[in-house]
Amino acid sequence: MSGLATSGLPLRPELVGEVPYGAPQLDVPVRLNVNENPYGPSESVVAQIAAAAAETARDLNRYPERDAVALRADLAAYLGHGLTADHVWAANGSNEVMLHVLQAFAGPGRTVLSFAPTYSMYPEYARDTHSGFVTFPRAEDFTIDVDAAVAAIEETRPDVVLVTSPNNPTGTALPPEVVVALVDASPGVVVVDEAYVEFARTGTPSALELLPGRPRLAVSRTMSKAFAFAGGRLGYLAADPAFVDALRIVRLPYHLSAMTQAVARVALANAGEMLAAVDRLREARDDLAGWLVDRGLQVADSDANFVLFGRFADRHALWQALLDRGVLIREVGPDGWLRVSAGTPEEMAAFKAALDEILSDHDPAAASARMP
Amino acid sequence: MSGLATSGLPLRPELVGEVPYGAPQLDVPVRLNVNENPYGPSESVVAQIAAAAAETARDLNRYPERDAVALRADLAAYLGHGLTADHVWAANGSNEVMLHVLQAFAGPGRTVLSFAPTYSMYPEYARDTHSGFVTFPRAEDFTIDVDAAVAAIEETRPDVVLVTSPNNPTGTALPPEVVVALVDASPGVVVVDEAYVEFARTGTPSALELLPGRPRLAVSRTMSKAFAFAGGRLGYLAADPAFVDALRIVRLPYHLSAMTQAVARVALANAGEMLAAVDRLREARDDLAGWLVDRGLQVADSDANFVLFGRFADRHALWQALLDRGVLIREVGPDGWLRVSAGTPEEMAAFKAALDEILSDHDPAAASARMP
Repeated sequence: MSGLATSGLPLRPELVGEVPYGAPQLDVPVRLNVNENPYGPSESVVAQIAAAAAETARDLNRYPERDAVALRADLAAYLGHGLTADHVWAANGSNEVMLHVLQAFAGPGRTVLSFAPTYSMYPEYARDTHSGFVTFPRAEDFTIDVDAAVAAIEETRPDVVLVTSPNNPTGTALPPEVVVALVDASPGVVVVDEAYVEFARTGTPSALELLPGRPRLAVSRTMSKAFAFAGGRLGYLAADPAFVDALRIVRLPYHLSAMTQAVARVALANAGEMLAAVDRLREARDDLAGWLVDRGLQVADSDANFVLFGRFADRHALWQALLDRGVLIREVGPDGWLRVSAGTPEEMAAFKAALDEILSDHDPAAASARMP
Repeated sequence: MSGLATSGLPLRPELVGEVPYGAPQLDVPVRLNVNENPYGPSESVVAQIAAAAAETARDLNRYPERDAVALRADLAAYLGHGLTADHVWAANGSNEVMLHVLQAFAGPGRTVLSFAPTYSMYPEYARDTHSGFVTFPRAEDFTIDVDAAVAAIEETRPDVVLVTSPNNPTGTALPPEVVVALVDASPGVVVVDEAYVEFARTGTPSALELLPGRPRLAVSRTMSKAFAFAGGRLGYLAADPAFVDALRIVRLPYHLSAMTQAVARVALANAGEMLAAVDRLREARDDLAGWLVDRGLQVADSDANFVLFGRFADRHALWQALLDRGVLIREVGPDGWLRVSAGTPEEMAAFKAALDEILSDHDPAAASARMP
């Protein structure tokens, strides 16, 4: 990533020295770094995707349906809560959904507020749209203190509040009353990023329930995680139809290819099967968290398909030692912590074996790795 | 498109009252409005796309290759001129390529310059990136006068010059010496938008030839037109590797889905076949232009797969009269002109029959339509 040779070009000053965002894409046996669902689609779904691709291909010389209405209707039906296509927006990953939100509601002279530690793309969205970006700290246990949050909003008067539930990289779910307080206090819009919500423990409510009567609230989702559709790139958002109309103004025309629309619709038509691994991954997460606690490590309470654990004096050394053993996790979040995705039993076994080996007294990395 | 209900929301002020960009998507028998290639892929290509989609689907739970290196290498091989993957950028349509260019090199406090009449998306790109946007007029025959253009650039000092060749909606190709003069005069970057270049008449050179030694020049292309791949959404750009690195900084991670990459690579592997209709469409364009001239109409000299013709006192009435007869063309460009895409023999026959009927003395629209 280093050595970008842009120095001779009239690049925008704030981009000079920046590098492209992204976790290392390394070809290793065990990839637990980007919270993918490790279970691919069945051969039945593969065959349906191939059939849809063939049908779509015959008309590929024509532009796609620009408003992706059929796809948005399918997404609305999946979400339930009485939502329709008019309540749903879709784009190439929730990255692009968030870009549209900030293009419509943030931008120069406006401010985006979030609660740290949180998703590391948020400042990138703000940078890309020339929006101001401020964060306020979460509590020690990564929850959001309502009174502090409301005070932060009243002080900052943000145009957009981005709040993640379950949070990435901590896994922390947000109670509905916190969302309601944030919306009530906010002069602008509030987006609850529910990328990982399908992994939440039973009884954890979605902010979708809060949409009626709150036209400045939106709930973003993705098919990349629970839906096992990261390669298909489909993010979406539910909100009042007026909110969706605002995003339609700033989207680039034909932003969703005919192939993306068709393949995502196949996945949605097979939602039950695509989501079949969610229970197994929840169990893997809970088992993983318990196992890490048993090792005497700190573990953040997680409603997502990953676990944040620590703390290490030199987390990079531990990350590297795991990578040396063929296990890729993510060096992200507050200092001293690392994030590992829930995977298959084989992946979990490989991770545990590697970590045990590193943390054993026989490994020289151990001494420097674990926090005193 | 009217009646967007965004008024109660804290939308950015410059977006209030705006509507989503795009030509009407109407289900009519003859669609000659968005310069699509009317010839779809063969059953052999359809089968290859289905096979690639199946293979890609099996890994759809994993994120796509973020830098799309294999696709960019294929695009470079298609372009020739000694280009490699490092010289090529790709995104979801040239819309997104242009967004990346303006995010990297334009933005607040910076200016984009173009020569009107030209592609109607350019001001949208500028608006979406908060860039200033200025146009200078083309000559009466839609060419660019070098001295006037250089003077405009020296006066404006633009950060980005967007120049279209062949131009949309006029079809006008740009001689290489004009591009060289624009680059030499420009303090910033110059993008030659060659979306329609494959339709240019024999001997019309591409600005790709001018890339060596010009690190501030880029040439954008699309697979939407000649390549008959509008539904696949694949735009690309060739430039110095440093220019491409600048675009990598501002792209959203995983912007190109695994399916988009795989399907575009199939199309590129079948480039000869995908482009097979280009000669026929060139002939259709030339025939169409001659036919319109025979009707006593004005026709802009075209190197693209469309013809701009006029002039009409009430072009909307003519557009509507054609639509009433099942023929959809585009109401775009300078006042009094209309744009029609080159199509199949059947589509061209339908267009001609409809226009003849309208322009005959028996049609009440004729009197008001044709310019006195």
